[in-house]
Amino acid sequence: SCHDPRVLTDTATLQVVLDVCGVFVFALSGALVAVRRGLDLFGIMVLAWVAGLGGGIIRDVLLGLTPPVGVRDWRLLAAALLAGTLVFLFYGRWSVITERAPEARPRRLATRAVRWLDAAGLALFAVSGAIVALNVDAGPLAATIIGGITATGGGLLRDLLARQVPEVLQRELYALPALAGAAFVVLLDHLDLLSTVTVWLAVALVFGIRVLAVTLDLNAPRALRTPT
Amino acid sequence: SCHDPRVLTDTATLQVVLDVCGVFVFALSGALVAVRRGLDLFGIMVLAWVAGLGGGIIRDVLLGLTPPVGVRDWRLLAAALLAGTLVFLFYGRWSVITERAPEARPRRLATRAVRWLDAAGLALFAVSGAIVALNVDAGPLAATIIGGITATGGGLLRDLLARQVPEVLQRELYALPALAGAAFVVLLDHLDLLSTVTVWLAVALVFGIRVLAVTLDLNAPRALRTPT
Amino acid sequence: SCHDPRVLTDTATLQVVLDVCGVFVFALSGALVAVRRGLDLFGIMVLAWVAGLGGGIIRDVLLGLTPPVGVRDWRLLAAALLAGTLVFLFYGRWSVITERAPEARPRRLATRAVRWLDAAGLALFAVSGAIVALNVDAGPLAATIIGGITATGGGLLRDLLARQVPEVLQRELYALPALAGAAFVVLLDHLDLLSTVTVWLAVALVFGIRVLAVTLDLNAPRALRTPT
Repeated sequence: SCHDPRVLTDTATLQVVLDVCGVFVFALSGALVAVRRGLDLFGIMVLAWVAGLGGGIIRDVLLGLTPPVGVRDWRLLAAALLAGTLVFLFYGRWSVITERAPEARPRRLATRAVRWLDAAGLALFAVSGAIVALNVDAGPLAATIIGGITATGGGLLRDLLARQVPEVLQRELYALPALAGAAFVVLLDHLDLLSTVTVWLAVALVFGIRVLAVTLDLNAPRALRTPT
Repeated sequence: SCHDPRVLTDTATLQVVLDVCGVFVFALSGALVAVRRGLDLFGIMVLAWVAGLGGGIIRDVLLGLTPPVGVRDWRLLAAALLAGTLVFLFYGRWSVITERAPEARPRRLATRAVRWLDAAGLALFAVSGAIVALNVDAGPLAATIIGGITATGGGLLRDLLARQVPEVLQRELYALPALAGAAFVVLLDHLDLLSTVTVWLAVALVFGIRVLAVTLDLNAPRALRTPT
Repeated sequence: SCHDPRVLTDTATLQVVLDVCGVFVFALSGALVAVRRGLDLFGIMVLAWVAGLGGGIIRDVLLGLTPPVGVRDWRLLAAALLAGTLVFLFYGRWSVITERAPEARPRRLATRAVRWLDAAGLALFAVSGAIVALNVDAGPLAATIIGGITATGGGLLRDLLARQVPEVLQRELYALPALAGAAFVVLLDHLDLLSTVTVWLAVALVFGIRVLAVTLDLNAPRALRTPT
């Protein structure tokens, strides 16, 4: 796909915005998981960093873009550390407030916050992953799959390190909205319709599907185990 | 090692055949692990994809072949998804039949099926990993080790995600047959004896050793802990 | 940063020394974890290999240096396997001796040995990671972070495979000394002060901080959970 230089510059700026936002929300989710696990300040920072930057680093390694932007762009690092610091500073206060509520509530709130932030990160990284892959001419299939991996990679590393069941294997639709969003970006690129507006539309699409799945607790069917 | 063009084409075809078969059997093992863990359709697809394509993706990343063939060749993706679909469709029926048998049986059968499929994937990927590494002149040691990593990587990722003890750390000989097979391929290449026949011989060798180890429950010695 | 050829050769030799030592001590830690988990000879070798070579392989993949030195330099492989063999041969004897001591002791000794070896590996790999990154002009931020990843990567993979809480998320300062050491190397390089003496000084710095943290059981603060 050919781009005129103006569009390329736009894409580059858009790329950074998508990445910084994605890193920030995923890092918040990582930091919250760390707090829930009782980890200290550095554990929080490590999980914020892993959750925020893991997906983008995997994306760049898969595309041969080394060293990955996640280890050399200070803005991405700053976004992750800011998220970790915010959670560290405010979780205590917020936790105190919610403690007056019924016992199960704070935990459920934190779990819900992780899910929503995760959905936002998923949306931002699915789109950003597909765009980066298209920019290095990886082909439509690779761009779709790398979008999916970029979106799910950070959360997967977070869950592995925190020793909890990976979100991507859980019941609700998780990887599918990411793959759909990446495929939508590939389609837009093919139709030469990739612009700031359509890119944010793709982000909203992934976020919407994922939040709907979480809210309605949509489950995919399981393999039959009992006779019908 | 120099090849005439005809042999190269043969190797390329052979490579795809080895990869598609390896992806398929490893994906079956991943899907079965997912079903045993009670995961839904997408969990099955994710574990099938991870188990089937993980090893080859790690191989390509280690060799600098980006984007990896596992994310851009639709045949490999199709093999993984077909395996996941088959397990999803037929596991219920098969499970119903075996449920009439003593209670412990279905589980033991699934465990055994995972082991055999795993052995086949191990054999196919050990050989394919070594061949790809030799094709990019990685040297004999690197080709042997990358063969071993390719063979064990997918199963390792599967076990990490499914939160079960990695097969590669378990008691029976696992990584060793893979390394032996990869070393055998390196030797064949050195002697200019690499052909369709000898490659399949190497696959049979790894599969045979591994199945023998599983069947006879061959254990490697442990570090002494009690006084002799 | 420009180097005259003599310095480059010195750096290369130094690099190998740092790497071989780092691989050896990390592999010892991996083998000890394997023994404590009751794994057999091959489990020990696999964990020794993963712990010893994992960090360097991740480093090389992040820097695009493929195939990684960890899969093609027999000296690194030999160091890892030697460490595994030593632990396998002598752990039984040592365990018998210590068994006469109070029951809790052998386990505590093994845990302490893993921590000290881990601290040494952390120091060696933090410095080596930063040097390799600087050699391929990765920039100061990337060199610091890649130093940190190189130092913590092997231990992290070891802990993931052994299914224990990653050391890097635990209470004591772990990643921070590694990052400080890597940043110190970047500073030395910037000031053109990188030499055999200063490099070993950086190694001693990281090791010292980490051992101090372990000995004094220095904890980082946790997010407040109880009202102040």
